Amino acid sequence: MTSWKARVPAALVVPNSLGDSLPLHMTPPPDSLVSPVDSSFLEGASSLASKPTPKGVNKGGERSKREHSRQLDRKMWNSSHDPVHIPGRGTLYFKCFETWKMEEFLALTKEHSLVKKGRALGATGGGARKFKDHFEQIAGLQLERADELYSLVRGIDFLARHAHQESFEYPAGSFRGGAIQRPLKEISDDEYELQAERRASSSTSSQDRSKSNEDMNGTEALRRVVKGPVLATSDIERLGGPQDLYPYLVVNIGSGVSILRVDAAERFERVGGTSLGGSTFLGLTSALTNCTTFEEAINLAREGDSTQIDMLVGDIYGGDYTEMGLAATTVASSFGKLVQPGRREAAMQTPQHLSKAVLLMVTNNIGSIAMLHARAAGVHQIMFTGSFLHENELAMRLLAVAMEFWSKGNIKAVFLRHEGHAGAMGALLSTLDPLNPIDKLLLDANR
Amino acid sequence: MTSWKARVPAALVVPNSLGDSLPLHMTPPPDSLVSPVDSSFLEGASSLASKPTPKGVNKGGERSKREHSRQLDRKMWNSSHDPVHIPGRGTLYFKCFETWKMEEFLALTKEHSLVKKGRALGATGGGARKFKDHFEQIAGLQLERADELYSLVRGIDFLARHAHQESFEYPAGSFRGGAIQRPLKEISDDEYELQAERRASSSTSSQDRSKSNEDMNGTEALRRVVKGPVLATSDIERLGGPQDLYPYLVVNIGSGVSILRVDAAERFERVGGTSLGGSTFLGLTSALTNCTTFEEAINLAREGDSTQIDMLVGDIYGGDYTEMGLAATTVASSFGKLVQPGRREAAMQTPQHLSKAVLLMVTNNIGSIAMLHARAAGVHQIMFTGSFLHENELAMRLLAVAMEFWSKGNIKAVFLRHEGHAGAMGALLSTLDPLNPIDKLLLDANR
Repeated sequence: MTSWKARVPAALVVPNSLGDSLPLHMTPPPDSLVSPVDSSFLEGASSLASKPTPKGVNKGGERSKREHSRQLDRKMWNSSHDPVHIPGRGTLYFKCFETWKMEEFLALTKEHSLVKKGRALGATGGGARKFKDHFEQIAGLQLERADELYSLVRGIDFLARHAHQESFEYPAGSFRGGAIQRPLKEISDDEYELQAERRASSSTSSQDRSKSNEDMNGTEALRRVVKGPVLATSDIERLGGPQDLYPYLVVNIGSGVSILRVDAAERFERVGGTSLGGSTFLGLTSALTNCTTFEEAINLAREGDSTQIDMLVGDIYGGDYTEMGLAATTVASSFGKLVQPGRREAAMQTPQHLSKAVLLMVTNNIGSIAMLHARAAGVHQIMFTGSFLHENELAMRLLAVAMEFWSKGNIKAVFLRHEGHAGAMGALLSTLDPLNPIDKLLLDANR
Repeated sequence: MTSWKARVPAALVVPNSLGDSLPLHMTPPPDSLVSPVDSSFLEGASSLASKPTPKGVNKGGERSKREHSRQLDRKMWNSSHDPVHIPGRGTLYFKCFETWKMEEFLALTKEHSLVKKGRALGATGGGARKFKDHFEQIAGLQLERADELYSLVRGIDFLARHAHQESFEYPAGSFRGGAIQRPLKEISDDEYELQAERRASSSTSSQDRSKSNEDMNGTEALRRVVKGPVLATSDIERLGGPQDLYPYLVVNIGSGVSILRVDAAERFERVGGTSLGGSTFLGLTSALTNCTTFEEAINLAREGDSTQIDMLVGDIYGGDYTEMGLAATTVASSFGKLVQPGRREAAMQTPQHLSKAVLLMVTNNIGSIAMLHARAAGVHQIMFTGSFLHENELAMRLLAVAMEFWSKGNIKAVFLRHEGHAGAMGALLSTLDPLNPIDKLLLDANR
């Protein structure tokens, strides 16, 4: 059993017409690590990705080597994201594996000579420092470290330019009256059906997924995500082009939260953050409910009713606090009902309510702080990224509601499809060599 | 066992030369309730207060009535604050009793005819609505409701004008290097001695207290509080007068938190708040540690080391994250270490660390949000008030550190000696009748 944070996001590049000279890029937590490796590894990896490896890649592969790679693949990659196709250049794949498999990964990397000689593995985030010695000692690999937040901004910028409909948002006014505090299934039938559909599609096995995704490019993937009344798409195209993207705010939710104001392609400032982030949710929820994994904690929250745990304005005032414009459903005090011993004892028997209350506390708080920074920076949209949002639609909904609540609808919460991979993408770009013809393909695409 | 929030702050007025025609004012949670009552009740009450009742008050009191009052007093009042002397006008006393004693209080109020006929009891806060029927049914008393935040601002303004050295602050730079995250006793010996001294003096029994406080006015009380290297005083006098007080921010910490920008004596706006407040601290701490009272939770926190629970920047990066100016001791993720099952199991055996981590999370977060509002409002000092800070020096220290951290020393955390009574004070002023000569004394003083 591992935690959500213990994943290694990776970005993989498959140029269109370069046969088996394929660079592969991958990334360890908290954010990223990227570098080119041998194609046979990618071959296995891509069997789990959305698109089969390009023509010409498999021609020289021995059967046994391929089997090895597939095995490696099944062991290593535990999730995937929609690929990004860059016309005339190639395709980017986004992968992650669990951190506790790091040593196994490194041993296999060495055994199969996956990384091409003379190339360093690019990396970013805390892991780039933490695992440096492991990479050298176990696999004889050099890590080339890129700054985490710089990589994040560079990656978002790249994805916003190249990934088709990278961003999406929730329509305004969907969550009035505190409905979001109740179990998700109690929200309207329409929404529930959409949830069920999405959950079913995201739990498809790797084989089925590989099959069903065979012809799927980013647009189709997004279409599947956004159908129904819940989601609407927004896009850099909608904004009229990259020049209208700036300034924007990035709220990156990992273990904790960093907030950046991005003024231009590679010009940004870390304006703030909060220590109430993804690991606060999992740490507190597991301490309160004895659950052990992120998935378990989120599944609990999905069924939870935080109004059993939180003290609402209505609980204090018997209704709205009209003088100050606070609705009765507004949370006055997170966990406020637990100060009463009787309610506390009852609450400790309902892990789903506790988990929902922790999640709501964390997302409301992030929304509140993000709104204040957005107002200070004069921006009207905030991009929420980070590994915490991976397969975490409930958190995204709660963040959208929080932004609507705190900004009175004036500031939009925007989400990215490749939510946890922007850092990996940026680190990949930072470590490409303009003198290498393969690397140059991608670098030129981003001019 | 009751919770901290279950207290009724009260403001009592003793005019200088009016014999036994003494109005008494008191307040139920979340903030305030005020009204005049019979002097014999006050007589008992004042025996617990800092100053004996003025000359002439006791002259008509029968022994049995006095005994009754004393008994009532001992039952009802569980804490007191420094009185405020208004030269030539009288003395204000600040009291509170526990909410669960409300019915007992009302029964006694009726039995002893404590409230003068024809006068309504002024009240503010959620309790003013919640207990309205109780007051009518049990004691035949009318509650006159004043807006909570309006009362708060009016009360702060009054205290800032009339209470000698009402506000105090902590000197800058006392808390570097994350020392505040460790148990309080590990901080320098000097500070520890001061803590011990303060704790000893605040745990003095009511009899001793009454005696030792006999000649003590507000200034002396404060002198006792601020001696040693820890505290420095600030004051409205230091600012050059009331006109230089505005604008300022009020952060009122009760169950939750309200943040107000005060532009003039009675002109203010609620600019924000957070649901992570006093009841979040007690609710979460009691759920995590099985403690049952606020005092217990704070005593745990005093011995706690939050670095055992929180993930620090140093835990992720192996040192400072210099590119972003984040010291290794900065909390990256509250409760972040609990995502590791082994650490979580160990942590659940150390309630003191858990309590400290909850407290630090709440105070750091309040500091962060307060700073953003202060910057938006262009103010350089923030007044922290509210019942959460009552006998809670650890929380005040943590808030001072948080403000220093978030504002890089540019915005000062200022605390009020009558931390939980500003609402009661304001409600008292709101319900005074300018045609009543006793009331007029106080109203005129505040011109």
